Amino acid sequence: MVAQLEQRVAASNHLASVNPVLTYTFASLPLQRGGQLGPITLAYETWGTLNAEGNNAILITHALTGNSHAHDVQHMDDPKRAWWNPLIGPGRPFDTSKYFVICSNVLGSCYGSTGPSSIDPSSGRPYGMRFPVITIRDMVRAQRLLIEHLGVRQLAMVAGGSIGGQQALEWAVSYPTLVQKVIVVAATAALTAQAIAFSEIGRQAIMADPLWQGGHYTPGQGPEAGLSIARMLAMVTYQSEEGMEMRFARRLAQNTTIPTPSRSDDLGERFDVENYLYYQGGSLVRRFDANSYLYISRAMDMYDVSEGYPTLEAALRRVRSKTLFIGIRSDFLFPPARVRWLADQMKTLGGDSTYVELDSPHGHDAFLKEWEQMTNALIM
Amino acid sequence: MVAQLEQRVAASNHLASVNPVLTYTFASLPLQRGGQLGPITLAYETWGTLNAEGNNAILITHALTGNSHAHDVQHMDDPKRAWWNPLIGPGRPFDTSKYFVICSNVLGSCYGSTGPSSIDPSSGRPYGMRFPVITIRDMVRAQRLLIEHLGVRQLAMVAGGSIGGQQALEWAVSYPTLVQKVIVVAATAALTAQAIAFSEIGRQAIMADPLWQGGHYTPGQGPEAGLSIARMLAMVTYQSEEGMEMRFARRLAQNTTIPTPSRSDDLGERFDVENYLYYQGGSLVRRFDANSYLYISRAMDMYDVSEGYPTLEAALRRVRSKTLFIGIRSDFLFPPARVRWLADQMKTLGGDSTYVELDSPHGHDAFLKEWEQMTNALIM
Repeated sequence: MVAQLEQRVAASNHLASVNPVLTYTFASLPLQRGGQLGPITLAYETWGTLNAEGNNAILITHALTGNSHAHDVQHMDDPKRAWWNPLIGPGRPFDTSKYFVICSNVLGSCYGSTGPSSIDPSSGRPYGMRFPVITIRDMVRAQRLLIEHLGVRQLAMVAGGSIGGQQALEWAVSYPTLVQKVIVVAATAALTAQAIAFSEIGRQAIMADPLWQGGHYTPGQGPEAGLSIARMLAMVTYQSEEGMEMRFARRLAQNTTIPTPSRSDDLGERFDVENYLYYQGGSLVRRFDANSYLYISRAMDMYDVSEGYPTLEAALRRVRSKTLFIGIRSDFLFPPARVRWLADQMKTLGGDSTYVELDSPHGHDAFLKEWEQMTNALIM
Repeated sequence: MVAQLEQRVAASNHLASVNPVLTYTFASLPLQRGGQLGPITLAYETWGTLNAEGNNAILITHALTGNSHAHDVQHMDDPKRAWWNPLIGPGRPFDTSKYFVICSNVLGSCYGSTGPSSIDPSSGRPYGMRFPVITIRDMVRAQRLLIEHLGVRQLAMVAGGSIGGQQALEWAVSYPTLVQKVIVVAATAALTAQAIAFSEIGRQAIMADPLWQGGHYTPGQGPEAGLSIARMLAMVTYQSEEGMEMRFARRLAQNTTIPTPSRSDDLGERFDVENYLYYQGGSLVRRFDANSYLYISRAMDMYDVSEGYPTLEAALRRVRSKTLFIGIRSDFLFPPARVRWLADQMKTLGGDSTYVELDSPHGHDAFLKEWEQMTNALIM
C-alpha cells in the first residue's frame, strides 16, 4: 500500500515536474490526544537553498486534500500544475532565489506521508480506522522534526491557507521562537458550528457507504460514492453563493454523461452546477484516500488554538512572530470577520499583526485563485 | 401502502388534534413536464367556515417535509403541535373566525396525498421512481381543483414559506383573478446555484444508499442513512452561521447515544451540533418517505416563476393580487436580497407589493419560529 502510494506520488510528480518528492522517516511522535504513532514518514519537496545560518527557510502548509507540490519549476506560470505555483519562485512572494521553500504532505494524508492507508507495522496491514486521532498540533510537531532534519534553525516564514492556515497559526503558538513570520490565510482560531456540521455531513456520507467497510476497504475499492458526495459538499463550502451564481446560475448542463455519485438517472433536467459537482466528486475519488479525508477533516474541526492553555489570550500571547492574517470577503467556511477578529486580538495583546482582506467573490477557494491580490497581500 | 399512510396520518392526527384530515380524489391532472397523473388524492384540513359568497378562504401552503396540520385547535398556543399554529386562529393573522383556512398536503408528499409511495394503479405497486416529475405548477393546479371542490370562488389569501412560498407565488401568476392577496415567505423567483447544489447533494446521499434500491424499497426498509444525511444537510441550510453559533458554538455533546446515520463511532469528540443533526436526521427518517423527498426537493430546484412566459417580467405582470414578500435577514437558502428584488420587480411592474424583512438570526427557518415578527408582518 505504501509502495503503491509512493508510486502514485512518483507518477503524478513525473507528469508535473522533475522536482523530487523526498521523504523523511522518524521513529515516533507522541500524540496530543494520547499515545504514540510511529514510524512516521513525511513526504516533502523543497525549492531554493538553505543558507549557512539555517534561517532562510519558508514552510508552506497545504489544504485538506493538497500535497507537497506547491510549486512547479518546469511550469512556473501554470496554477494548475501546483497549488501555490504563482506565489513561489524567483522574485515572487515566496522567493526561491532568497529562501529555501519547503512543503511537506501533512501527517494523515495519502501523498507519501504516513496516514490511514499506510501499513501499520503491528499488523502488516493498512491502519484504516486503527489510525489514531491526530490533531493540527501533531501535524505541526511532525513538521518541526522535518525542518530540524533539514538543518533549519529558524523559519523565516510559515504560510498556509485553510487547514494549512491553522497549521501556520499553530506554529506561531507552539514554537514562538522558531518562526519569524506567520501567514495565516482563510483560517481562524477554531471552526464555527456550521463548518463542523458541513464537515461531519461529508464524513457521514463516506462512512454510510457500505464500501467503506468500517475503513477496511481494499485500495481502489473504497467508498467512492460517499467520498464523492463529501467532496461535492466541500466544494460548495469552498465557494460562495455569489461566485456560484456568477459561474453557474441556473444554466442547464450541456453534457450529461458525467456519472452521478449514486449512478442514478437525472430527475428532470440536470443543472450545470450539478454536473460540475459530479465532476469534482469523481476527480477527488481518483486521487484521495477516504480515510485520510476522515482524519484530516476531523483534525480541522477539532482545532482550537487555545487548547491546552488557560485562555485563548494565553495562547495568543505566546506568539513572537510577525503575523499576517488574510481573510476573504465571501468565505463562509472561515468567515472574514473571524479572521480579522483573530488579527485584532493578536494586536491587542501586543503582537505585530496585520489583517488583509481579499475582495473576491470566490469564497474560501480565493486563496487558490486570486493571485494578484494574494501577491499584494504577501509582500506587504 | 396508501392505507398505511392514511393510518399514519390518522394516528399522528389523533395524537395532535381532533381536526379530521379529509381527502379529495380527482381523476387526473395534466403535468407541466408532460403526461398525466391520476387518480390524485389530496389530504387536507380546514378551520373556520366558508361564507355563502365562497370568497373568504385562505390557502396555506406547507414547506418541503410539512403536511396539512398547520393548526391545532386543541393546543392553539403550542407551535410544536402544528407548524403555523400561532398564526392561525380567532384574532390571529389567519383569523379562523372570519376566514375558511385550508391546508392541503402537497402533491408528491407522503401525508395522505398522492406521491411516490402511493399505489400506481397500472401496476398495483407503489410508484417509486415511476412517479412522474412534478413541478410547483402541478402542485398548484392540484390545489386549485381542491379549492373548487370545496366551493371556493375566490381565495382571500394564499400564504406559505419556502417551497410553500413558491406555491403562493405561482398561485399569483397562474391564477391572477382567483387570489386577492398572496403572501410569499422566504421564497424567490427561482433557487440559486448554491441552493440547487445543496439540494442535489442531499438527493445523492439518498440515492447512493443501497437500501434505496432505485426507489423500490419496502416501506420501513428504505434508505434511512441516506435520508438522514440529506436531512442533516438541509437542517444546516435552514439555519445560519450566526444562529448555529448562538445555539451550539463548539460545545461538546453531553449525550452521545444518538446513533449516527452511518452507525459509525465518533472520531475524537462529538460536538453538540453533530448530535443535534443526528437527532434531526433520525426524526425525519421516522416520518418521511425518501422518494417524496427526492421529488419535492427537485420541484423546488426546478421552479422558475418565469417558465413558460417570454420573460420574468411577463410572468410577474400577470399578477393582480396584492403581494406581501417576507424575507429573512440571515436566510442563505433564499437570500433576503432576492426576496426583496422580487418585491421591487413586482412594484416596478405596477403591482401592489410590500416587502418586510424579519430581523432574525434563525436563517430560513425563522418563518417557523419568529411568531411575533411574522404576526406583525402578516397584519400589515
